[in-house]
Amino acid sequence: MPHPRATAPQPTLSVVAVDTGGADEGVATVVEGARRAGTSVVLFGPAAEIADPVGEVVDAPLVIAGDEEPAHAVRSKPEASIVQAARAVGNGRAKALVSAGATGAALAASLFHVKRLRGVHRPAIAALVPVPGHPTLLLDAGANVEVRPEHLVQFALMGAAFMRAVHGVERPRIGLLSVGDEATKGTADVVEAHARLAALDADGGGHEFTGNVEGHEVTAGAVDVVVTDGFTGNVALKLMEGTARTVTGAVRDAVRSSPLASLGGLLIRGRLAGLRRELDPNAVGGAVLLGLRRPVVIAHGGSSAEGIANAVRLARRAVDERAVERTADALASAGVLRSGGSASFAP
Amino acid sequence: MPHPRATAPQPTLSVVAVDTGGADEGVATVVEGARRAGTSVVLFGPAAEIADPVGEVVDAPLVIAGDEEPAHAVRSKPEASIVQAARAVGNGRAKALVSAGATGAALAASLFHVKRLRGVHRPAIAALVPVPGHPTLLLDAGANVEVRPEHLVQFALMGAAFMRAVHGVERPRIGLLSVGDEATKGTADVVEAHARLAALDADGGGHEFTGNVEGHEVTAGAVDVVVTDGFTGNVALKLMEGTARTVTGAVRDAVRSSPLASLGGLLIRGRLAGLRRELDPNAVGGAVLLGLRRPVVIAHGGSSAEGIANAVRLARRAVDERAVERTADALASAGVLRSGGSASFAP
Repeated sequence: MPHPRATAPQPTLSVVAVDTGGADEGVATVVEGARRAGTSVVLFGPAAEIADPVGEVVDAPLVIAGDEEPAHAVRSKPEASIVQAARAVGNGRAKALVSAGATGAALAASLFHVKRLRGVHRPAIAALVPVPGHPTLLLDAGANVEVRPEHLVQFALMGAAFMRAVHGVERPRIGLLSVGDEATKGTADVVEAHARLAALDADGGGHEFTGNVEGHEVTAGAVDVVVTDGFTGNVALKLMEGTARTVTGAVRDAVRSSPLASLGGLLIRGRLAGLRRELDPNAVGGAVLLGLRRPVVIAHGGSSAEGIANAVRLARRAVDERAVERTADALASAGVLRSGGSASFAP
Repeated sequence: MPHPRATAPQPTLSVVAVDTGGADEGVATVVEGARRAGTSVVLFGPAAEIADPVGEVVDAPLVIAGDEEPAHAVRSKPEASIVQAARAVGNGRAKALVSAGATGAALAASLFHVKRLRGVHRPAIAALVPVPGHPTLLLDAGANVEVRPEHLVQFALMGAAFMRAVHGVERPRIGLLSVGDEATKGTADVVEAHARLAALDADGGGHEFTGNVEGHEVTAGAVDVVVTDGFTGNVALKLMEGTARTVTGAVRDAVRSSPLASLGGLLIRGRLAGLRRELDPNAVGGAVLLGLRRPVVIAHGGSSAEGIANAVRLARRAVDERAVERTADALASAGVLRSGGSASFAP
């Protein structure tokens, strides 16, 4: 017998919980960004500073700073904005989390309250790297400075599922970051991860493992997903961003170096601005935590309002495209879930 | 009683042994590069292909390829060009080695025949990274994919001694590549290396340990020497070179995208060419093996004649500036030589 249709309106669930704490550009920039995103949000931050709310506001003036030990801070400050926001996602009040605050705090709060997917060893931070014209996801970008081969295997599949779900890459090519193409190149852990990835049934997983990938191949757009440990990945991401900034800065200096060059610069200004936009961290919204039960996006600390808006849109898109569910399916069908444990747990 | 002055001319010692084998651009390019360098050389390669020798030629047509297992190949092919060249340096016939062949073979041949400095754990590959206007040395760029803290400490001092001797940096700033500024950030080995470097007597060593350095600080020219393990370093170097190439390529594409932009490009062409030269691997000659008893330079595989010439000049400069002797002194006075072993040995 069919369930009678409810006559009372359902309470509206906010799609994205937004932590306004800790953003370099201040609370107002985050609020403005959330407004521009054009989706329903619930804001966690100092209500007194949120003059013109774009959605529901939960007063949470306490911020966890970047120099606090994340796990300790999250445990000892349950009223902090990131902790309240993560709890709202964990208990279903919102479907995704966006934070412009400290990465460590967002990661710890997500582990405690959003929780990891069943069978996932470790969540990873996934970030798009500055490869013009070719969205390339790198993970882990810093959540786990030391990893085991089984972690790298899960990172690979989580990254591929994300690129499929959110960036529409039908059959993502996965590369394992190493120091040579041969399967024997790299640390012992990388060699072991290579063997395990090569042994996976690629057809079932909807991805292609292309083997090891070297630095210059990454920037040439050789793969869609770059897998590495969180130490190498964090260093790599910051080096790439720094190099892109240094080189575009040197081009700008070259353009300003003489009147004739300045004229030349004027003529290519539009094109150079386009390139800078492509390389701009704000354009992609932020890094994503993969391996959790809900999408979590960590916006760059220095995000502009547009950067925040893109982060919220990215979280919304991950919800709409069922990125988490598809990740869980991909891990299960590849047979790489952690055995033994019947439930996920926070550390 | 003073020694009577010899009337017979002393046999001329060649300064630099040049291995012509394995260069992407062929033997003739290496020979032309050696000629341009303007120093005395002895060439190891196929005599039949060296029509117009620039110095003494040792016929050594056998080449060790990049896909051979280096240690095995060096042991089983004593007549190969790189092995003969390294032996000539080891027995004092030449004072430095330059190779444009496979890095692994050059490293293995150098370990066997040039030999490591007394008390050095592991030689490291040191390479200048593309930071416009600020020579920045990164090591290890790939010789040791897994290292211990005491290796990182030696790398730091070897790199600083090289920058002092060869690049004239009076008091090199050393940064330990990691994922955050705090001394506690990074892998356990990095944290331990940080503590040991901080405990060194910097005044005695003529360097300054600035602590951890992150990727974006490297490209901003924050330090003169970047210390890391050979896995991270190799990945980092190739990512930086790749990013620089990708971004300058995107600028070139932008310039070619329309007639107006092309005109603009013409007006800044000279400046852009200057920037590309600064970022060009050929400009720096090649990577250097530190921790050996003689200077060894590994030119880029794809070196032009000018790239080879710069590699030979770099080797010559290391000889003239007594880079090896000064490295040994720096390691000894810092008290970081390997204890116990009384002599260096090949693995």
